[in-house]
Amino acid sequence: SECFDPIDHPHRRYNPLTGQWVLVSPHRAKRPWQGADEQPQPESNVAYDGSCFLCPTNTRVSGDKNPDYTGTYVFSNDHAALTADTPSAPENSNPLFRCQSARGLSRVICFSPNHSKTLPQLSVGAIRNVVDTWNEQIEELGKDYVWVQAFENKGSVMGCSQPHPHGQIWANSFLPNEISRKDTLLREYYAQHGTNLLVDYVNSELEDGSRTVVDTEHWLAVVPYWAAWPFETMLLPKTHIRRMDELTQAQRDDLALAIKKLTSRYDNLFKCSFPYSMGWHYAPFFESDANFSDTSTDHWQLHALFYPPLLRSATVKKFMVGYEMLAESQRDLTAEQAAEKLCAVSDVHYLD
Amino acid sequence: SECFDPIDHPHRRYNPLTGQWVLVSPHRAKRPWQGADEQPQPESNVAYDGSCFLCPTNTRVSGDKNPDYTGTYVFSNDHAALTADTPSAPENSNPLFRCQSARGLSRVICFSPNHSKTLPQLSVGAIRNVVDTWNEQIEELGKDYVWVQAFENKGSVMGCSQPHPHGQIWANSFLPNEISRKDTLLREYYAQHGTNLLVDYVNSELEDGSRTVVDTEHWLAVVPYWAAWPFETMLLPKTHIRRMDELTQAQRDDLALAIKKLTSRYDNLFKCSFPYSMGWHYAPFFESDANFSDTSTDHWQLHALFYPPLLRSATVKKFMVGYEMLAESQRDLTAEQAAEKLCAVSDVHYLD
Ligand SMILES: O=P(O)(O)O[C@H]1O[C@H](CO)[C@@H](O)[C@H](O)[C@H]1O
Ligand SMILES: O=P(O)(O)O[C@H]1O[C@H](CO)[C@@H](O)[C@H](O)[C@H]1O
Repeated sequence: SECFDPIDHPHRRYNPLTGQWVLVSPHRAKRPWQGADEQPQPESNVAYDGSCFLCPTNTRVSGDKNPDYTGTYVFSNDHAALTADTPSAPENSNPLFRCQSARGLSRVICFSPNHSKTLPQLSVGAIRNVVDTWNEQIEELGKDYVWVQAFENKGSVMGCSQPHPHGQIWANSFLPNEISRKDTLLREYYAQHGTNLLVDYVNSELEDGSRTVVDTEHWLAVVPYWAAWPFETMLLPKTHIRRMDELTQAQRDDLALAIKKLTSRYDNLFKCSFPYSMGWHYAPFFESDANFSDTSTDHWQLHALFYPPLLRSATVKKFMVGYEMLAESQRDLTAEQAAEKLCAVSDVHYLD
Repeated sequence: SECFDPIDHPHRRYNPLTGQWVLVSPHRAKRPWQGADEQPQPESNVAYDGSCFLCPTNTRVSGDKNPDYTGTYVFSNDHAALTADTPSAPENSNPLFRCQSARGLSRVICFSPNHSKTLPQLSVGAIRNVVDTWNEQIEELGKDYVWVQAFENKGSVMGCSQPHPHGQIWANSFLPNEISRKDTLLREYYAQHGTNLLVDYVNSELEDGSRTVVDTEHWLAVVPYWAAWPFETMLLPKTHIRRMDELTQAQRDDLALAIKKLTSRYDNLFKCSFPYSMGWHYAPFFESDANFSDTSTDHWQLHALFYPPLLRSATVKKFMVGYEMLAESQRDLTAEQAAEKLCAVSDVHYLD
């Protein structure tokens, strides 16, 4: 009988960070495509757009005027999903109708005054500014909130209503699902093995190499073994770092370089501004919230997650629908095949 | 100090079927929209399309010719994500690189020979044929596979490559994530309360009424209290039914009617062919797989889930991106507001 070969045979891989499996159907990438094409985001060539509410000196919906900023610029989201002063919800003991009030706030981070430059097109120095702004915001908000989610939605296919390069920060009075589950699983691994899951994982990937996309002095980007999205990557420091604030200056500079290389490979893959949602996971601020009695965080490791939707070209994405929503994530090429494609293109941006 | 009001204040609701929370930001529906517009699926007016590979008498990519079918028609997917004869994967004891081989198969179900009629536009009798076909397929495949996922991706925004009305059936040699988690949670509730979670839920919703969208003799469709997608619904029988096969003839006829009413309300909401992914959850076929020693299924209740992506109009969808992918699902209107909007339109299709 035939031998199992992960390049040919359907299989499932386990994500130890979510406790979920992903169905891998490597033979399926061959099927013809008759479905929807995305419209690629029209690229902007103007450094300043008078009608953009993120450009320097322009006035926003709220009536506030942006300063003539030169690096990054942070302001409160005029349509925040959360409010800082939400009243407490009454207790409800019915297990089928559980509700809790949610406090928090949302901010917008403009990555650059230049309307037309996405992350990979910024200089390493300008990306370093973004890293510093993420860190400052997370540290500031972490004094009041147990969780601070820094993220970027890039491209209209990811619901980004605005081409000016920017990200968001949402602070939460609760541990969101994904963080809560990851905290439990990282804690269990630490208790069982006495080592940090993601530090062990970085070391394995450094040895293996088959899923590596970017390897700088201090950082490693891989298509994780359990990736669900076709070109999903995870960006990790090579040493044990619980939060961004623990990074040395050299690690921060090198993070900016790693981000530039990774996002350039993305843009180079299909010669387009590669859409994604990305964001940071790291040790929650348990110490800022009296509801959490166990404030230990040694089981955590800082990492960024990139979830790009594209599958075959600049206009054909992977649809996580039907089977995926009802049963399980499914992918059409292996993590190793995706890493190979990303490594086959340059880490210098095609427009640089 | 102000009182908590779920219509005004951000809160989280708990989904007892997934163990996950959803963030509800009801005040946020007011923000302006500058993002991507979907292109509505061009509607087809022809009952027969010579270039469609699902229409009767046409030849498919595989070279097979469709019969001149008059009701439903089932065939093997020419690009299946699963294979029936996958070799076993070798054991790997490393907890970071877990893999298992996956067996299964995929079939396509044409709902009707008529190229231009989606579910809500079919007669109740024709929908009853679809119900019978789902049931036959599930029962047949359940003899060999522990899980059989019946689903429909409708509309190009849901990755549906084909306007001819059809669904899919994927059989699995494993319990997919969503089913495995639901099985655990339903089982726990049953052990703790001695009653069936979803039967209790149906009874609560029948009493409350504020989330009800369709209420027929034997079936109830509600926007669940914990809905994540704006107009998500759940369709449940009013009695305890573990699998479709247990339904009486009257319950089957009435299911066809309930589906027609529910999908008509959907189409009427934005006067368009309302996209969604839908599918069935029910007691897995534990008895067909020696790996499952506990074959009890009293904790299960048959139900269909509808996940439609639209938020504001026929062309503006909810993007489950950034914060949602990294942290937690978030919605901009309450389940009760969504039910109210769906009830405000007729349950007779606008084209009927
Ligand atoms: O099988 P289809 O219709 O080609 O493909 C569609 O449904 C599948 C099952 O939900 C998904 O995996 C695909 O991403 C989607 O495009
Ligand atoms: O805040 P924005 O950019 O208006 O909105 C976008 O990002 C949010 C956070 O991921 C999502 O909830 C919205 O669905 C999406 O359209």
